[in-house]
Order: sequence, then structure tokens, then C-alpha cells
Amino acid sequence: MKDHVVVLTGGVGGAKFVLGLAQLMAPSSLTAIVNVGDDFRHFGLHVSPDIDTLLYTLSGKANAVQGWGREGESWSFMQQVRSLGGEDWFALGDGDLALHVLRSERLQRGHSLSRITADFASGWGIKLSVLPASDQLVSTVVETDEGPLDFQHYFVARRCEPRVHAVRFDGADRALPAPGVLEAIGNSKARAIFIAPSNPYLSIDPILAVPGIREALSSAHAPVVAISPVVGGKAVKGPTAKLMMELGLPITPATIAAHYAPLLDGLLKDERDPDSPLGVPYVSADTLMLSLHDRIRVASAALDLADRLV
Amino acid sequence: MKDHVVVLTGGVGGAKFVLGLAQLMAPSSLTAIVNVGDDFRHFGLHVSPDIDTLLYTLSGKANAVQGWGREGESWSFMQQVRSLGGEDWFALGDGDLALHVLRSERLQRGHSLSRITADFASGWGIKLSVLPASDQLVSTVVETDEGPLDFQHYFVARRCEPRVHAVRFDGADRALPAPGVLEAIGNSKARAIFIAPSNPYLSIDPILAVPGIREALSSAHAPVVAISPVVGGKAVKGPTAKLMMELGLPITPATIAAHYAPLLDGLLKDERDPDSPLGVPYVSADTLMLSLHDRIRVASAALDLADRLV
Repeated sequence: MKDHVVVLTGGVGGAKFVLGLAQLMAPSSLTAIVNVGDDFRHFGLHVSPDIDTLLYTLSGKANAVQGWGREGESWSFMQQVRSLGGEDWFALGDGDLALHVLRSERLQRGHSLSRITADFASGWGIKLSVLPASDQLVSTVVETDEGPLDFQHYFVARRCEPRVHAVRFDGADRALPAPGVLEAIGNSKARAIFIAPSNPYLSIDPILAVPGIREALSSAHAPVVAISPVVGGKAVKGPTAKLMMELGLPITPATIAAHYAPLLDGLLKDERDPDSPLGVPYVSADTLMLSLHDRIRVASAALDLADRLV
Repeated sequence: MKDHVVVLTGGVGGAKFVLGLAQLMAPSSLTAIVNVGDDFRHFGLHVSPDIDTLLYTLSGKANAVQGWGREGESWSFMQQVRSLGGEDWFALGDGDLALHVLRSERLQRGHSLSRITADFASGWGIKLSVLPASDQLVSTVVETDEGPLDFQHYFVARRCEPRVHAVRFDGADRALPAPGVLEAIGNSKARAIFIAPSNPYLSIDPILAVPGIREALSSAHAPVVAISPVVGGKAVKGPTAKLMMELGLPITPATIAAHYAPLLDGLLKDERDPDSPLGVPYVSADTLMLSLHDRIRVASAALDLADRLV
């Protein structure tokens, strides 16, 4: 029986989709392959924003309102950092620091990001596999009209204001897929491989930039299905729509389908967006995920589409 | 006019004495030379417990009840560390982490401990000089009946329970006095050099173990005056009395005076302890420092004694 599901995902939107899927199957059958292009060092600590968002979301700790970090977070650390004149453009919560401090210390001792992530997940009772795309550094750099910016400087410090004309992934050429990534994609028991409704250019492309992952997707047995991050000609969150505009791309499901072709076998698009030939089979549904119920509904629609493509 | 005062100090008790002195003179005339033998790495962060106690005490942030850390501290970080199975024998408060994280990051960038400490002090409006005894690692190791223990393992994890037979300072032979230390001690304007009522074996000896400091004290113009940490045959706090017992030493001011001879020019002892020849001039006073008023009184008595010795 084909019961294994793989999801390529970034942070918030992707985490919601993964959470929806986790309600529909045995979590042990689910593998999330997570973007590490946003990872960066801050105060000498290794911060992995997308992995942490997955861990918080899947363990019920995520702050649903602000869309990042922990629910009920306290901010004494940042207050003291400010009182000492330290940088405060990137907010690290007190509890959130535990992940960064423990991760940094173990990386320094030579542990891999994938092993550390697996230990964090199991410590918090998360039964599905959360895999970084790579154990090596793959750093998303945004080429803007203000010059190249590290992802977090673009995203947090500059609030996505600079105009983007290209995105590159430093270190991707030397990176290897983390242990388990190619196995999950190539698994003969895989029922579906999903590309979550994350930012294609900033969250999914850094995963696809890791040598071997694109090839594994091309030759996978399971259908590759993307969930469009475009909803009614806009993006739900983050800079996806603004970025598409700056890159001269129409904000439509067709752009998303074209971006992932020829890897793609199907697309789940929002019912608010126009129907038109996408080059792959597609299904329209309400893809907005506000409640857990919404997440389950979207995950279910994605699974249905994948099952029809076999 | 001789108006400069130097204090060799450990953490809590010494910090109280320094705070008392700071009420009696221009803070810019005061230099605290602080023990770094307790410094250690925890979670990959460089923790400097005695320097931090000075910084918290002198900026009004110290927790007066527990005797270490910040007033009004929160503990989200430790809660999350525990939830991830991390070590929790040494408690790092959320706000306290700011010092450790910023310090570690700057040390990694090649900044010296003394420069970082000076920046922290000035960031918190502390006008006196807080100097680490050395910018190099001087690690206090306690030889016990359970074998050698790093200071914090002995002090915090094992709560000073193992029986001590010797103390050594790893790295001291290769350490240099931090910039400003020898200058402060040898300053021709120095009015007094105090040895704070800290643990002689665990807090002051690591300072004296840094090559050059003992010699500078011997040849200093200013009188060297110790404040006895023994009060009524006991120590106010920490393992001083237990340690003296295990080392076979009577818990008396005479033991303290003998320990610091021949550096010592005078001793301020508590009035509860018996009067007896100490080999140096001494004065008896109430040296218990519970209130700020007490701290000022003890500092004043120490200054009076020093002035009489010139």
C-alpha cells in the first residue's frame, strides 16, 4: 500500500499544510523536507526559521497571530540586548532561544542539522520526519535595487521593501541532500510528493537548488503536486505577490505551474483564480487556511488530486 | 591627592563591598579587578559569573534574595531547554542570557573580555572600572575526594558537597593581567587596595595566580587591606567556612591574614571574632552587609583603616 507522503516546505504556510496532512494519516508516514535557505547566524547563534516554524506548528507551540515564534513568548532577552546597545532588528524570544542555543552548541560539537532537528522533534513528541533539505549551508541571497541582501536582512530588517530582480542560493552547489531526503522522495511506497503553498522563489527554490533533489523528483514514482500559494491573485502572506510582480510575472496559478514544470504532475489552485490551461492537471478548491479545519480540507483536496494522477 | 581605590573581588560579597565604596567616592576613582576563575562555557556560551554579579549589583539589577542573577528574571529559556532534554543544572535566566550571548559572540569575533566588560558596564551606566583579572582563561579546578571538579560543577551541580583538599587554576601560568590591572594597582594616586570579603581560596587566589598581579601588589605604594570574609567564626555565604575546615584551617581572621601575608598591610575583621595578634594592623567592626547602609559602613571602615596605614 502506498501510504507515504512527502512535502517540500518553507515556513508558515507550508507548516499549516503539513499540520493538515498530519491529521489525515499516520504521522510516521509523513516526511517534511524543509527549506534551510533562510538559516543565518545571529548573535553567533545558528537560527533555522523554517525548521523552527515547523517544530512549533507541529508541537502546538506556534503563535497563530503573529505567524512566527512561540505562543506566550516572553522578551527579557531582547530587552537586555537593547539595554546593552545590541542589534534588535531580529527578535529572538526567550523560549525560542533554547532551540538556537542548543542547536548552535551541538553544531559546534559536530552534530548535523538533521540529527539535531530529529532530536528536537522527538523531544517535543513530533512523530513525523522533519528533515532539513541539506545539512550544509544554502544561503538565500536576494539581488535587489539596493544590491545583494541576505535573506533575513531583506525579509526582516528591510521588510521586503527593496525591489528584487533575482535570487541566488550561496553554497547550494556544494550542498548535499540531508540523510533521508532522497530516500523519502524516491520511496516506492510514496503516495504523493507535495510542494507546499510556500514562496516558490524564496522557500522552495532553495530546496530544489540542492544537487540531487530536482533529479530525484523527476524520477520519483509518486505524483508531484504543488499547492498554489496564489489565492485570488494575491499571496496569503509574505512577499510572494510583490516578488512575482517585480520579476514581471503574472500573479496566477499558471505562473506557479510554469515555475515548477517540468517536475510537476498536478496543481491544486484556489477557486478564486481563473480557470485556464496550466499544462498539468489541476483542481480548484478553497485553499485559504485560517483554521485547522481549513488545513485538513486543503490537505485532503491535495491528496485526492494526487490519487487521481496515479 | 590620593583618591584612587582598587578592589580585588569575587562575586556576591565582594560586589556588595564595591557598591558600598561607590557611594563614598567618585565612581571614576574606583577600579574593581574581578575573578574570572569561575568563568566557564555552558551551552557553548561564555559565562562570567563574578563579572556579571558586579554588573548586576552596580547597575541595580541584582536579585538581592537569591544572591545571583537578575531581579525579576524570567525562565522561559530554561523551561524550553528542559522540554528538549537539555542540561538544567546551571540556570540561565532569560535576561541574563543577553550578557552570555553578546559576550560569546564578541569573543568569537576576537574582542577581549576586558573590552566587552567595559562596554557592558558603560551600556548600563556604570561609571567605575570593572576589569577582569585576565583576558585569558584561568579556570578554577577543585581537587576533591571525588576527583578534580570544574568550579561550577563543584559549586552549582554538586553544591560544594565533595570534600576539598586542594584548588588549582588551570591556564593561570599562561595568563596576563588584563589591560589596566597592573596600572590600577601600581597607580601612584592609589589611596588603598582592598581585598574584598570574597572566598580567599576560590575567588581571590585565582586573581593572585595571574603572573604579575602578586608582584604588583607587593610593590604598590598604596596599603593593601583585606576585609575578612569570616564573621563570628562562620562565612556569610558560600563554601568559605566548609572549605577552610576541609583544608584544616581555623575559621578565624588570623587564618585570613596568614593567607594573604606577606602582601597584606592591614585587615578589617568582624567584631564578633576574637582579638588576637594577626601579624598586621587590624580594626574590628560589624562587617555583616545586609543593607546598603551596612555596605557603606564597612567600606568606610576599610577606608579609615587604609588611611591610617599610610
